[in-house]
Amino acid sequence: MFKAKISADILRDSIKSISSIVDEAKFKITDSGIHVRAVDPANVAMVSLELTSAAFDSFEATELELGIDLVRLIDALDMAERNASVIMEFNKETHKLQLGIGGLSYTLALLDPSTIRKEPKVPQLNLATSVKIDGTTFKRLVKAAEKVGEYITLGIKGDSFYMEAEGDTDRVRFEMTREEVIDIVPGESRSLYSLDYLTSISKAVSASTELTIELSIDYPVNISFNLAEGKGSVKYLLAPRIESE
Amino acid sequence: MFKAKISADILRDSIKSISSIVDEAKFKITDSGIHVRAVDPANVAMVSLELTSAAFDSFEATELELGIDLVRLIDALDMAERNASVIMEFNKETHKLQLGIGGLSYTLALLDPSTIRKEPKVPQLNLATSVKIDGTTFKRLVKAAEKVGEYITLGIKGDSFYMEAEGDTDRVRFEMTREEVIDIVPGESRSLYSLDYLTSISKAVSASTELTIELSIDYPVNISFNLAEGKGSVKYLLAPRIESE
Amino acid sequence: MFKAKISADILRDSIKSISSIVDEAKFKITDSGIHVRAVDPANVAMVSLELTSAAFDSFEATELELGIDLVRLIDALDMAERNASVIMEFNKETHKLQLGIGGLSYTLALLDPSTIRKEPKVPQLNLATSVKIDGTTFKRLVKAAEKVGEYITLGIKGDSFYMEAEGDTDRVRFEMTREEVIDIVPGESRSLYSLDYLTSISKAVSASTELTIELSIDYPVNISFNLAEGKGSVKYLLAPRIESE
Repeated sequence: MFKAKISADILRDSIKSISSIVDEAKFKITDSGIHVRAVDPANVAMVSLELTSAAFDSFEATELELGIDLVRLIDALDMAERNASVIMEFNKETHKLQLGIGGLSYTLALLDPSTIRKEPKVPQLNLATSVKIDGTTFKRLVKAAEKVGEYITLGIKGDSFYMEAEGDTDRVRFEMTREEVIDIVPGESRSLYSLDYLTSISKAVSASTELTIELSIDYPVNISFNLAEGKGSVKYLLAPRIESE
Repeated sequence: MFKAKISADILRDSIKSISSIVDEAKFKITDSGIHVRAVDPANVAMVSLELTSAAFDSFEATELELGIDLVRLIDALDMAERNASVIMEFNKETHKLQLGIGGLSYTLALLDPSTIRKEPKVPQLNLATSVKIDGTTFKRLVKAAEKVGEYITLGIKGDSFYMEAEGDTDRVRFEMTREEVIDIVPGESRSLYSLDYLTSISKAVSASTELTIELSIDYPVNISFNLAEGKGSVKYLLAPRIESE
Repeated sequence: MFKAKISADILRDSIKSISSIVDEAKFKITDSGIHVRAVDPANVAMVSLELTSAAFDSFEATELELGIDLVRLIDALDMAERNASVIMEFNKETHKLQLGIGGLSYTLALLDPSTIRKEPKVPQLNLATSVKIDGTTFKRLVKAAEKVGEYITLGIKGDSFYMEAEGDTDRVRFEMTREEVIDIVPGESRSLYSLDYLTSISKAVSASTELTIELSIDYPVNISFNLAEGKGSVKYLLAPRIESE
C-alpha cells in the first residue's frame, strides 16, 4: 500500500529533477520514503532522487515499485495552486495512482515497471575537488555557454572555479574565486561536458538552491542539491566528453 | 443611424464572448441597445449577446443591422488603452463603421449581413438543475479536463456539482459541494460536451465573472453571465455529445 | 588600441538601434568616441550612431576600424544584468574583441571590415517640417498601422502631425495637434513609407525616448533621438515609397 500527502511544490520540483533526464521512471517506495534512479537512453547522464518520509506531511507505505510517466504526472501537478498539497494513493485493484489536488481527483495510469529501462548501478567515484554555488549562478553560466557552443568545460584551478565554452567563432569564460563561491574544495580538475544535459539540469534547478559540483580530470561530474529542507536530495552524474584536438 | 460611446474594456469583453464561437456576426441595433445571436458552422454552439443602451456612456440609434468581422474589430479594440473609451459611428455614405479609440480613428469595413450565416432560433429548453460558479473555477476545471481528453462531463448529483473527463489512460474528476459553489439548484443531471467549445468559452470568460451553468440529462448546457454590471449579458447554448459505449 | 567601459544598458540600446537595419557594421573608433554608419541591403534605410567618449565610464582609443557581428554582440550583452557595466578591449594579437560582463569574459570574433557593405554617404536633405513625439506614441502609431496594411503615411498639415495607413478593407488615422506633441515645426509635408522598416526602428526605440521626425513631401524621413543623456545619438534616414494610384 502507499498513501502520502506532500506539498505540491516539493513534489513538482522532485519530479522535474528526474524528468530533465528521462520521461519515465521506476519509483521504489518503502516505509522510509521514495527512491528513484534512472539513466538517460544515451547512457550519459544518471539521476537519483531520494525523498525521505519526513519530506511528506503524512506517509504510509509498504514496499512497492511504481512505473511513472513523468510527463503526465507533471501535467497533473501543474493543476495545483501555489502552496497546495497533493494526496497520492495507490489503488491496488485498478493498479492506478490516485492524486488529490485541491478538490481535483486525478487518476494516473501506471506503467509496467518491467518495461522501463533498468536502473543503473551508481559507480563509486573519487572526485577530489568540489565547489558549491547557488542555482542562479549555475543557470547563468550554462546560459552563457549556450551562447557560443555545444560543450562546456568545468574546472577548478587552485581555489578558483571556472567554466569555459568555445564555439566556431566566439569563446566565453567565467571564473569565481574562493570569496565568490559558497564553498570550495580546491585542487586541479577540468572536464568537458555536453551542454544539452546541463541545460536540462539547469532548468530543473531552482534559483535559490545551493548546488554542489564535484569534479576531477576528464572524469564524470557529480551535481547534487537538497530538496524539502534536506529531507530529500537529487544527484546527477554526467559522463565527460573527451576533448578532441 | 448609430452613434455610441462605451468603455473599450466592456466592448472588447462583449466582442470576445461572440468571437469564441464565430468569426463574423450580424449586430442588430435598435434604440434600446445591441443584440447579437450566432451559431457556429457545426451547429453545436450558439451565443447570444445583449448590450442594453444603459451599458453605453452615450447611445443614439435607429433600427440597423451591421455585418461585423469580429477578428478585425478586436484587432482594432486591442489598440485601446486600459480604461479608455471607444466612440462608434456608422457612416451611411461609405457604409463603414468609424471607431474613435483615444486619438486613433479606425475605419472598419462592414460585411454584407446577407452573407453571414442566418441567426439561429433559440430553442425553449427546460433545464431543471443549475449551478453558479466563478470564472476562475470554470477556467480551472476546463483546463483540468484538457489534460486528459477531448470531452468533458458536467453534472449535478443531489446538491453537488461535478465535472469528469477521461482520456486514453488518465481520468480527472472535480466535485464541489453546496458550500463550495456560489449557488445551486440541486437535482440530477449529467451530459457530455466537446471540450473544444468549452475551452473557447473559458477564454472569453473573465476570472471575476459569476457563471450560471444550467444542466439536464443528455441535454444542451446553458452557460450565461452578465457584462457591464448587469447592463449586458452573454448566453451560450452548447449541444451535448451522446456518450458511446 | 581600444579599451573602454560603459553601461551595458547604453551599449545594448546603441547596438540594437543599428541592428534594426543591418546585421553587421563597421565601428569607426577614434579618441573622441565611436561612430557607425550603415545602410540596409535594399538601400532604403540608413542608420548612423554616434557615441562620444563622454558616454563611457572610461575610454582610451587610437584610430581603429572594427567589423562587428551585431547579432553576436547583442547575444553577449544579453548576459549582462541590469545596471551592469561592460568592459571592451580590442586584442591586437588575436584580432578579437574582449568583453568583460560582470565576471563573464566573452571573446568576440571580429569581421574583416572590407567584407562589410560600404558606408553610405549621408545625403544633404532639406526637411522643412518636423515633429517631436515620445517613444511610446511612436510605437503605438506604428502598431496601429500594422493592423491594417504594409505602408504608413506620415505628414504634417499646418501645426498638426498625422499618420495614416490603409489596407485592403480598413483604414486607420492618427492625428496630434500642437498641444499633443512635444514640439512641432509646422508646414506641409506628406510621404509614404514601408512599414517593415518603421516596425524595426520602433522596436529599437525605448518608450521614454524623445524622437524627432523630420518630413517633407514625397521625400525621405529623418528619425533621430539621443542616447546616454545626449552623449550619444542615433539617426535613421528612410527613403519614401512613391504612392501609386
